[in-house]
Amino acid sequence: MRRFFAVGHRASTDPGFPLDDLAGSAGRMDILLNAANAALLLAHGIRRDSEIGLLLLGPPAPPRFVRLVGFRLKSYQPDIRSNASLIRQTLVDASRVEHEFSPGVYGSIATFPEALDRLGPTFVALREGGKDIRQAALPSDATFVLSDNQELAADEEGGLRDRGALAVGVGPVALHTDHAIAIVHNELDRRGA
Amino acid sequence: MRRFFAVGHRASTDPGFPLDDLAGSAGRMDILLNAANAALLLAHGIRRDSEIGLLLLGPPAPPRFVRLVGFRLKSYQPDIRSNASLIRQTLVDASRVEHEFSPGVYGSIATFPEALDRLGPTFVALREGGKDIRQAALPSDATFVLSDNQELAADEEGGLRDRGALAVGVGPVALHTDHAIAIVHNELDRRGA
Repeated sequence: MRRFFAVGHRASTDPGFPLDDLAGSAGRMDILLNAANAALLLAHGIRRDSEIGLLLLGPPAPPRFVRLVGFRLKSYQPDIRSNASLIRQTLVDASRVEHEFSPGVYGSIATFPEALDRLGPTFVALREGGKDIRQAALPSDATFVLSDNQELAADEEGGLRDRGALAVGVGPVALHTDHAIAIVHNELDRRGA
Repeated sequence: MRRFFAVGHRASTDPGFPLDDLAGSAGRMDILLNAANAALLLAHGIRRDSEIGLLLLGPPAPPRFVRLVGFRLKSYQPDIRSNASLIRQTLVDASRVEHEFSPGVYGSIATFPEALDRLGPTFVALREGGKDIRQAALPSDATFVLSDNQELAADEEGGLRDRGALAVGVGPVALHTDHAIAIVHNELDRRGA
């Protein structure tokens, strides 16, 4: 299983966030949705061995945690506007117990460390200056952790450090979250081929 | 200069195509816009050494050719809905002479071979089964050619063959256009580092 975890520091937790302003008043929800597409989609289908967890930390009711699980998803399309509706569904009911709102789409209340512990057990923090992914020994079943357009906060970094996360870099320049995920998949695809 | 060329076989040439249905009635315009983001964006800015040409072949007035040129772009954001407005602007006036509609955003009427010849001079066709990009000798100033979710048509393939395009693959599985572009950039970033 390939696991990704993307943190949306301002991502809206309002079940009515606007589908027409994902990059604006929905708090850069577009970053999380593009990350989900990079984690889950092949040219002609879904990566059934992949899942992504999205942590929504924006107003009005953070933290909310959404998991999209490849092998369970049905009718997941590349259109981020449609996928935003899947996220909205999960925000209607607030519970610490995870609930499957539609096939492969799970929602719950969970903090950053709680979300890590649901994904684990081993973690790779993707960041500039980390060990080059082409040379890195990647733990099997690792969860790759990424942020949105903000750096991880100090306590989030601490949570990763406490769990012994390996720091890995994908290349010499800083990339958008979805493009970094595409490069991780490519490296793993090559190792698995 | 890094150049990309993406063909949108159904991409709308209507200057009023709907911003709220980019993946549907706009003819998978989302694919072209995501490709443009992968070609042009770094985490914190624009790739000034990169450009992408988008060929729009959908109704009602194909072919239309849009070039987004990194070093000229101002205020280009990752939000594909906003960027769709940049594309729409270029569709209002139809001319075979290329016109700059806003900084770095050029539009014209051009067929597939005409668009190739504006980008050239050397071409790399990204496709499954091509020579592995990690091993390939990539021509400097090559234009990387990609399709949307349809294969290139026979005459398009012929146009590439006539120009001696090198066939290159990015990995063992078929990917979305934007993810393939991210992997090309990563390889070139590494070679340039």
